[in-house]
Amino acid sequence: MEVAALVGSLRRQSYNRGLLRTAMLLQPEGMHIYEVQIDDLPFFNEDLERPSDPPAVRAFKGEIDRADALLFLTPEYSYSIPGVLKNALDWMSRPPGHSNARGTPAALMGAAIGRSGTMRAQLHLRQICVQVGIAPTPDSEVFVTFAGDKFNALGELTDQTSRDLVRDLLEDLMDWTHRLRGWR
Amino acid sequence: MEVAALVGSLRRQSYNRGLLRTAMLLQPEGMHIYEVQIDDLPFFNEDLERPSDPPAVRAFKGEIDRADALLFLTPEYSYSIPGVLKNALDWMSRPPGHSNARGTPAALMGAAIGRSGTMRAQLHLRQICVQVGIAPTPDSEVFVTFAGDKFNALGELTDQTSRDLVRDLLEDLMDWTHRLRGWR
Amino acid sequence: MEVAALVGSLRRQSYNRGLLRTAMLLQPEGMHIYEVQIDDLPFFNEDLERPSDPPAVRAFKGEIDRADALLFLTPEYSYSIPGVLKNALDWMSRPPGHSNARGTPAALMGAAIGRSGTMRAQLHLRQICVQVGIAPTPDSEVFVTFAGDKFNALGELTDQTSRDLVRDLLEDLMDWTHRLRGWR
Amino acid sequence: MEVAALVGSLRRQSYNRGLLRTAMLLQPEGMHIYEVQIDDLPFFNEDLERPSDPPAVRAFKGEIDRADALLFLTPEYSYSIPGVLKNALDWMSRPPGHSNARGTPAALMGAAIGRSGTMRAQLHLRQICVQVGIAPTPDSEVFVTFAGDKFNALGELTDQTSRDLVRDLLEDLMDWTHRLRGWR
Repeated sequence: MEVAALVGSLRRQSYNRGLLRTAMLLQPEGMHIYEVQIDDLPFFNEDLERPSDPPAVRAFKGEIDRADALLFLTPEYSYSIPGVLKNALDWMSRPPGHSNARGTPAALMGAAIGRSGTMRAQLHLRQICVQVGIAPTPDSEVFVTFAGDKFNALGELTDQTSRDLVRDLLEDLMDWTHRLRGWR
Repeated sequence: MEVAALVGSLRRQSYNRGLLRTAMLLQPEGMHIYEVQIDDLPFFNEDLERPSDPPAVRAFKGEIDRADALLFLTPEYSYSIPGVLKNALDWMSRPPGHSNARGTPAALMGAAIGRSGTMRAQLHLRQICVQVGIAPTPDSEVFVTFAGDKFNALGELTDQTSRDLVRDLLEDLMDWTHRLRGWR
Repeated sequence: MEVAALVGSLRRQSYNRGLLRTAMLLQPEGMHIYEVQIDDLPFFNEDLERPSDPPAVRAFKGEIDRADALLFLTPEYSYSIPGVLKNALDWMSRPPGHSNARGTPAALMGAAIGRSGTMRAQLHLRQICVQVGIAPTPDSEVFVTFAGDKFNALGELTDQTSRDLVRDLLEDLMDWTHRLRGWR
Repeated sequence: MEVAALVGSLRRQSYNRGLLRTAMLLQPEGMHIYEVQIDDLPFFNEDLERPSDPPAVRAFKGEIDRADALLFLTPEYSYSIPGVLKNALDWMSRPPGHSNARGTPAALMGAAIGRSGTMRAQLHLRQICVQVGIAPTPDSEVFVTFAGDKFNALGELTDQTSRDLVRDLLEDLMDWTHRLRGWR
């Protein structure tokens, strides 16, 4: 099972990148998580789709194409997801090259220094997924609150409760992806 | 009254850019609307803030700085605002250079080819404004639905009902901005 | 397949009740839709749960209990779902008697006289479902806009396009329910 | 300045009722907060509006009518506001007797035992206010998280940081209400 991971934060010491590393360590047998770069995409512009998608967009869509499932790791900026992540979704939602994301199962997680733990951003992301046709696991969520206390200086998630939640969500995604095989 | 306009769509024939031109034609006496470029901003990255904002960001923040009010013109992509617009808000919400947007009144409008007329995107935008500290007019909204029928080939908004709504919203913004003077 | 239907509008000539009648006429082979009454429930109050749920709540939970799937038919009141429907969800989300709704597949539809066709209300409903553990079909939605033109004087949905959407959604719900069998 | 308070929780030991008592103790000079009962309203039903609103609704609308501002104190049920509170808003949004709430300033606060502190519910409430025409303070919010630790056995809010936030929000509401005088 190939899982394409999109990280919404670009800074080097990003908690959400640390969360991705943790997810890669804890991924269940039979799952392979790989990161898809999103910070080299141009801002979405319908004019750029003609005559065909720019090379960076084609490469991005190819990476999404070969995924059986998606994993979103998002910070919360101004009660929503970052622009860079939304921009990737803007491209994913589009023809030409058709929306390869339609029907793809997904899992959502996020880490933030405050108490919200990205809960508001994840609700926006779920709303966006409805239209793109991505199917997140319906009731499982990972919010890493007060991230400053839960990652060590190397950016590793050391909080055991959070690690358990990450593993549970990945197992959930595995079951969810099996159930949705051939769905759309 | 200086009003900084942010357009969420980048394509040349954008309905929302047409909407901006209409707003500029209909702006009330004493209001001056100017567009602020957002497609030359890098993706937000906290690392880029040090030692200081990149030149494009500094220029952008300066343009926001001198505004008495903001005008958002947004399409709806995947039930939300475009990544390029969210990215501009990500920069606006930030120190260093402090969030100059805090306390700024705003008006929201949008055009779309479908029946939603951007109503879902505008609700996301309102939620984002809460955290950035921007104060949209509370109950006035402009949704141009089925935009393909309401703009002519030159990109001019020809639908009279929609034009009236645009003018009403701008007058509302004028009153709103006077009320909020010195608020934050 | 037993499908419990909850209608958010109480007026006699309700478009959403008309939508339910249409759904009952168009239900696929093997599906049986029945309505669950929600207007006799008391307002949710944790104190009422002790020593045990009031009779009306017990009856309601029993009706939810025997459903394989849920069908929501909601108007849009103030950009959200009606209080009467939210109140039913407040009870469904609760122990004691545990949340029998957890893991239940669902489909969402709605009719409204305006252009929104309940699209904003349905997004709120989806957000609520995340916490209750209800799993709506991820990407299929029925919005009956301008309902005044699409129902006849007898409250029957006569618009063929809308009827097709209703039937498609019910078939989607059937497939979805099979996929989620034994999920939670 | 008369402020009508609506509490979304009905249980006797409700944290949000405790929050209201705290607000009443901390209300600034010149502000008078009074509670409006909402649990005796029938579920909204357009048929009940004819020939005129039921007595309980008329009494309720009268209480809203004489308010200069509104104060909402809401728990979070299933990521949204309670049905009982939404039902009150359903009535407030309506003619006949016209929507007396239009143009009314408001402040939002909430307490919850979990980490969300009602932040998701308050965002739904803000969205609802857009359509009802209620104008909440744009950027000030009170979320009492982990309420079990912040109220004593008598239901008094003892956490000093939270008390300060309550007082700040009430002062904010006072300024906000002055600014909006004569607005709609």
